[in-house]
Amino acid sequence: MYGAGDVRVETVPDARLVAPTDALVRVTHACICGSDLWPYRDMPAGDEGNRMGHELIGIVEDVGAEVRTVRKGDVVVAPFAISDGTCEFCREGLHTSCLDGGWWGGTENDGGQGEAVRVPHADGTLFALPVPRDHALMPSLLTLSDVMGTGHHAAVTARVRPGVTVAVVGDGAVGLCGVIAARRLGAERIIMLGRHADRIALARDFGATDVVSERGKAAIERVRELTGGRGAHSVLECVGTEQAMLTSVRIARPGGAVGRVGVAHYEAIPAAQRTFFDNVIIAGGPAPVRAYMEELLPDVLEGRIEPGRVFDRVTDLDGVPDGYRAMHEREAIKVMIQL
Amino acid sequence: MYGAGDVRVETVPDARLVAPTDALVRVTHACICGSDLWPYRDMPAGDEGNRMGHELIGIVEDVGAEVRTVRKGDVVVAPFAISDGTCEFCREGLHTSCLDGGWWGGTENDGGQGEAVRVPHADGTLFALPVPRDHALMPSLLTLSDVMGTGHHAAVTARVRPGVTVAVVGDGAVGLCGVIAARRLGAERIIMLGRHADRIALARDFGATDVVSERGKAAIERVRELTGGRGAHSVLECVGTEQAMLTSVRIARPGGAVGRVGVAHYEAIPAAQRTFFDNVIIAGGPAPVRAYMEELLPDVLEGRIEPGRVFDRVTDLDGVPDGYRAMHEREAIKVMIQL
Repeated sequence: MYGAGDVRVETVPDARLVAPTDALVRVTHACICGSDLWPYRDMPAGDEGNRMGHELIGIVEDVGAEVRTVRKGDVVVAPFAISDGTCEFCREGLHTSCLDGGWWGGTENDGGQGEAVRVPHADGTLFALPVPRDHALMPSLLTLSDVMGTGHHAAVTARVRPGVTVAVVGDGAVGLCGVIAARRLGAERIIMLGRHADRIALARDFGATDVVSERGKAAIERVRELTGGRGAHSVLECVGTEQAMLTSVRIARPGGAVGRVGVAHYEAIPAAQRTFFDNVIIAGGPAPVRAYMEELLPDVLEGRIEPGRVFDRVTDLDGVPDGYRAMHEREAIKVMIQL
Repeated sequence: MYGAGDVRVETVPDARLVAPTDALVRVTHACICGSDLWPYRDMPAGDEGNRMGHELIGIVEDVGAEVRTVRKGDVVVAPFAISDGTCEFCREGLHTSCLDGGWWGGTENDGGQGEAVRVPHADGTLFALPVPRDHALMPSLLTLSDVMGTGHHAAVTARVRPGVTVAVVGDGAVGLCGVIAARRLGAERIIMLGRHADRIALARDFGATDVVSERGKAAIERVRELTGGRGAHSVLECVGTEQAMLTSVRIARPGGAVGRVGVAHYEAIPAAQRTFFDNVIIAGGPAPVRAYMEELLPDVLEGRIEPGRVFDRVTDLDGVPDGYRAMHEREAIKVMIQL
């Protein structure tokens, strides 16, 4: 990506092993993330492009001398954050705060939206999948790299538990996965705030019981009406704007929690007095999806959850620029790249 | 209180039973709260005064026909919030969000800084103490009405647990009780941010292991130095200003939590991106001290905690105006009123 709206498919030097803890992975499946749309909207134009993509499944082609947990031929999924798996934060399950971690793409690292990647800290980062490379569940398995784990993080940090009422702010792929996660954790009622017919339909399939299509204050009032004036026990903030955050804290029930996973594009969390007097908890952040893979994998493999349904378009590498456009224009929910 | 700095002791109509769920309580012990200092600093002058005081112990003098749990002669402590004890929030332990609750003082209700109070919802609000009226532990028992329960709430919502590092922002009575609470819940290290020698000495007695007397950015850097660059697992925000909140979120460790109990005098919670990327939890609010009384009482009665030591001055009703002045000028930590 060279700037807002400017995504190009280019030939770059081949990915290769650098450190003995690296793996080289040939990408078979990748995707475009809602968070990629932030720079697609506002990145200043420049001569040096950023490599893009942080969600991928692939085949291990080679490993460094110190790699122990994956080997050549393994089918692996990579989380959106690189982590060593051994530091104090990784041991606590907060891989996104890894002391020696990093991020895909940019100017230094390879990006998932490409043919192959060097994977730093392969043992800590990669997760081997017990399936062949063309398994029918690949789309759902690919969501473990980000959106399903992120929706799960929103639900966990918003303290979803059996019987509660949940509100999901944002009907993108993460919000939709948030619906799956909320239902999986036992929510009794799931209110989806969104306006796009295709996404709403999918949300209902995933378990949403109510839909609020109003915006701003009207949306807040509608959620309050639906909840007897109380608000939702758990609010999943899956957008990242100040407006979405304001809506989220205003629809939380006293003693409830907001799990924010939309990348924060606001300087301060609004309505600080209201959340104070209502004892509303504000939690969340980048999801440690690596920590959640073990937990979510069986449900994907056994078909209990189908997060891969958020992909409503498949393309090859050449189709990536148009994939960005389609997601930006809300023509597609989420685009999968198959190589 | 008729305005900033203007506290008067006046004769008002006698407190009396109004509803059948009321109790009439003769006050024996009350106190001035750090939160009373907010209006003492900035309340606009007016002709109609506010009755003050929301922390009290007293003797039940009479009860309405429907009161079941307390009776004439009982020694009772009242929490700073009136609650019915039966609504959905009270049943969840969040008495400060009681659907039928209320607050002491103002122009409608009696205030604790007086000879007697009408107690609405006596069954839900009052807590009978198993001690005679002149028991030596009265100061510590009185803190169950607010500051000890509030410090405990800060610690609970900041997720203090055995072995963690805690930072306490604010060396007032609540911060000092926060130190007691953090130690009680098993904190290994307790860093007190404060500057007043008498308070620091008490904090150390209560279990603070480190003291940071710097302000602003220097304080943040000092806490980071003390914690190997990581920050504290649990931060107890016991002030309520934007600056204190900024310090609190900046000294929290990734994955840590801020428990805010200083009455929020800021519109928005600062550093929203930092707390997002670090997965810092922001929790807390008005403490449901009624819910904590059962838990804290044995530790007070058996002398394991001595929160009553935060009272460093005792006065009668006539001395209340000077008590405000003394607390405002940081001459006293907290003033007890004995009747």
